[in-house]
Amino acid sequence: MALVVQKYGGTSVGSIEKIKLVAERVIECYKEGNQMVVVLSAMAGQTDRLIQLAGEMTVDPDPRELDVLMSTGEQVSVALLAMAIRSMGYEACSLLGFQVAVHTNHLYGRARIFDIETDRILQELKQNKIVTVAGFQGLDDRGNITTLGRGGSDTTAVAIAAALEADVCEVFTDVDGIYTTDPAICPKAKKLEIISYDEMLEMASLGAKVLQIRSVEFAKKYDVPIHLRSTFTKERGTMVIAETKDMEKVLVSGVAYSKNEARVTIRKVPDQPGIASRIFGPVFESGIVVDMIVQNTSEDGLTDMTFTVPKSDFYKTLKQVSDVAQEIGAEKVIGDEDIAKVSVIGVGMRSHAGVARKMFEVLARENINILMISTSEIKISCIIEEKYTELAVRVLHNAFGLDDEQKGDQ
Amino acid sequence: MALVVQKYGGTSVGSIEKIKLVAERVIECYKEGNQMVVVLSAMAGQTDRLIQLAGEMTVDPDPRELDVLMSTGEQVSVALLAMAIRSMGYEACSLLGFQVAVHTNHLYGRARIFDIETDRILQELKQNKIVTVAGFQGLDDRGNITTLGRGGSDTTAVAIAAALEADVCEVFTDVDGIYTTDPAICPKAKKLEIISYDEMLEMASLGAKVLQIRSVEFAKKYDVPIHLRSTFTKERGTMVIAETKDMEKVLVSGVAYSKNEARVTIRKVPDQPGIASRIFGPVFESGIVVDMIVQNTSEDGLTDMTFTVPKSDFYKTLKQVSDVAQEIGAEKVIGDEDIAKVSVIGVGMRSHAGVARKMFEVLARENINILMISTSEIKISCIIEEKYTELAVRVLHNAFGLDDEQKGDQ
Repeated sequence: MALVVQKYGGTSVGSIEKIKLVAERVIECYKEGNQMVVVLSAMAGQTDRLIQLAGEMTVDPDPRELDVLMSTGEQVSVALLAMAIRSMGYEACSLLGFQVAVHTNHLYGRARIFDIETDRILQELKQNKIVTVAGFQGLDDRGNITTLGRGGSDTTAVAIAAALEADVCEVFTDVDGIYTTDPAICPKAKKLEIISYDEMLEMASLGAKVLQIRSVEFAKKYDVPIHLRSTFTKERGTMVIAETKDMEKVLVSGVAYSKNEARVTIRKVPDQPGIASRIFGPVFESGIVVDMIVQNTSEDGLTDMTFTVPKSDFYKTLKQVSDVAQEIGAEKVIGDEDIAKVSVIGVGMRSHAGVARKMFEVLARENINILMISTSEIKISCIIEEKYTELAVRVLHNAFGLDDEQKGDQ
Repeated sequence: MALVVQKYGGTSVGSIEKIKLVAERVIECYKEGNQMVVVLSAMAGQTDRLIQLAGEMTVDPDPRELDVLMSTGEQVSVALLAMAIRSMGYEACSLLGFQVAVHTNHLYGRARIFDIETDRILQELKQNKIVTVAGFQGLDDRGNITTLGRGGSDTTAVAIAAALEADVCEVFTDVDGIYTTDPAICPKAKKLEIISYDEMLEMASLGAKVLQIRSVEFAKKYDVPIHLRSTFTKERGTMVIAETKDMEKVLVSGVAYSKNEARVTIRKVPDQPGIASRIFGPVFESGIVVDMIVQNTSEDGLTDMTFTVPKSDFYKTLKQVSDVAQEIGAEKVIGDEDIAKVSVIGVGMRSHAGVARKMFEVLARENINILMISTSEIKISCIIEEKYTELAVRVLHNAFGLDDEQKGDQ
C-alpha cells in the first residue's frame, strides 16, 4: 500500500463533468490499494471571476480580504470532488487550509508555507477516506486566511506530500510530461522519463512553465518524487526526482527558450565602486525582475553594462535607467526588444567540458549572432535575435542528440 | 459609544453597487461613534447557484460537503464588504465562522450555535476596525464547517450581539418593520413601533416571515433588542424587545394568517391509549410538521382526530394516515386543502378576557364558519375556508382597533 498525493489543476476540474472524471481516476488509484490525498485548484475561470468581482469593488483591493475572497475558489472544488466521490460509493472528506492546517507566514497573496500539520489528514486516511485538500490556501499565526499566489496548488501538493512522507506526488496537467524542448517548434522533441529537480528548475524558469518553480524547490528540499502526467491519458509522464549517477551520462537534457526578454545597455559607465547598485537599485525597488546581467572589462575607466528584463517592463526600465545614467555621467542608454534567450540544460555539464563550445559552434554554423552569454553550473544561455529562436532551438536539439529519430521532419 | 451589530440579508448585498451602499451605511453609523460588527448573508442568487452546482453533481449531496460549499457564499460577501469599507478610507476586517469562532453542534445544514467566542472580534474592535462577519456558518468540535440552515444569518447576528452584549442588533431587510397585519391584504395595517419577543414568535410562525424564528428565540433568551428596519430608508422600524407593562394594555398587537395549511381528519377512531402515537408516529418520522391537533370528546368509544399540515405535505400525509386508519379500524380519512389559518396575537390577552369571544363574534357576523380552533397564552387561531381569508383579516384588524385611521379604504 502506498500513500499517493495527487494534484489536479483548474482545467482538470473546470466543470461538473470533469470533476466526475477526476473522481473516477482517484477512485481507480484508491482501488489499487493506495491511500489518497487529492489537492485541487479552483475550477478554471473561477479565480478570474473572483478577481473581477474585487476589481469591480475597488481598484486596489485589500490584500487580506482578497485572500479571503480568492480562497473560496478551491473550497468549491474540494467540496464538489468529495461529493462526487461519495456519490460513487466511496468515503471522502474535504479539508481546507485551516482544517489541515497549512501554516504560512502572513504575506497575503504570496504566502510561504512553513509547516503542515498531518494529524487531521492521517485521521481521515485511517478511516479509509479519500481526502480532498484545497490547494493554494493557508493560515497565518493569527488565524487569517492566506494564499500562496498563482500556481500555489502545486506547492501545496508537494508540501503535503513532504509532510506525509508520501510515496509520490502526482501532478496532473494538460501536458503529458516534460519534453526535451517545446514540441510546437521542434517536432522531434522527446518526452523525458526522468529529470532532476535542478534541471526542472532551469527548464521552468526558462519558459517551460509546467510546474510552479517553488513547488520544485520544495520537492528538492524534502526529496519528494513528482510524477508529472496528463489528466487525459493513462500513460506515464515524467518523473522529477533527485539527481542520479545515470543522469550525469547525459550531457544535455533539454533546450529551453524564452521570447519574453528585452535588453538594456548603458554605454560608457564610469567604472567605480557602487555604480551597479546605483543603476539597479531603482529597478529592483520597483519589483522588476532582472535576469541576466553582463558587465565587460572596463577601458579607460569606462564600461558597458547590459542586462535583460521581461518585455512588459522594458519601457519602464528604460526610463528609470536613463535617469540614473544621466546622474552618473554615462554616455547613453540603448535597448532592444527583439531578442530571445536560448538555453541548453543538463546536470551532465558539471562533469563534462565542451558543452559551451559546441553550443557556440552550432549557432555560428547557422550564422546566428550571440548577443549575450550567461552560464550556470547546469545551464548555458545565449541571447540572440528573436527571429532566429526556432532555428536555434532545432539545431541545438539535434546537435546535442535529443532528436526523437522515430519522428519525421515536419 | 454603543456596540451595534447590524445584519444585512442577501438582497441588500446582491451586487457590487448594493454592497457599496451597505458600506456607506455602516460607515455612517461608525462615524456617529459606534463600534460596528456587521453580519452578512450570501449575495442574492449565490446560495441558489451553489445548490444548483451540488445538484448537478449528485441528487443526494453529502451534507458535510454541502456545508463546505454553501459557506463560500457568505465568505465572498464579507470579503467584498470589508474591501468596500477600506476603499472608503476606514479600517475593516472580515471574520469567518471558524475565525470568530462560532461553535455549533455537528448537524450539517441545520446546526445550532452553542457558543460564540468574542476574543477575536473584540481585538479587532479595539483597533477601531469595522468587523464583517460571515453569517449562517459555524464550526463543530472537530473543526468541520457547519451551516445553520436558511435564514441562519439572523441567528448569527443575534447570537453575536448576545455574546458581545451589544446595545442593539439591527436587522436590515426589504420591509421597514413589523405590521399589525399584511398590508397587501389590509391597507390600513400599521407599522408597530415595538413588539415583544413572544408576539414576534407567534407572528413569524404564523406567516409574517421577516425574522427567522430561531433568531427571535435566541434574542428572547439573552434579551437582545432587535431593531428590524429597512435597508432602503433611514426611518426607524420595529423594535423587538422583552415584554413591558405597557404592552399588556394593548389587547391584540396583530392579525396573522397562513394559506399554507391543509386539514386531515380521521373519523371514528377507537378511543384507546396509544392511538395518537400510532397515528402521528409515521407522520413525525417522515419529517412532516404538524401544526394544530384537535381531538374531540369521544362518543361510544369513538372519536374524531383532526390536524393540519403544510399544503405541500398534504397527499403524503393522507396516504400515511389512511394506512394507519385501516390498521386501527377507524371509519375513514378525509382531508381539505382549501383552508386557511387566521390568528390574533397579543400579550394583552394574558390579563384580559374576552378576546376569543370577540374574535368568534366578528367572524360569525360575516358568516365565516370556524372549522377548528386552537389557543395559546397570547394567540387565538381559527381555521376557516380559504376564500374568506382576506375578509377575516380585515374585519378582525378593524374590530381589535388596529386600523390606521389616517389611511383610507382601498
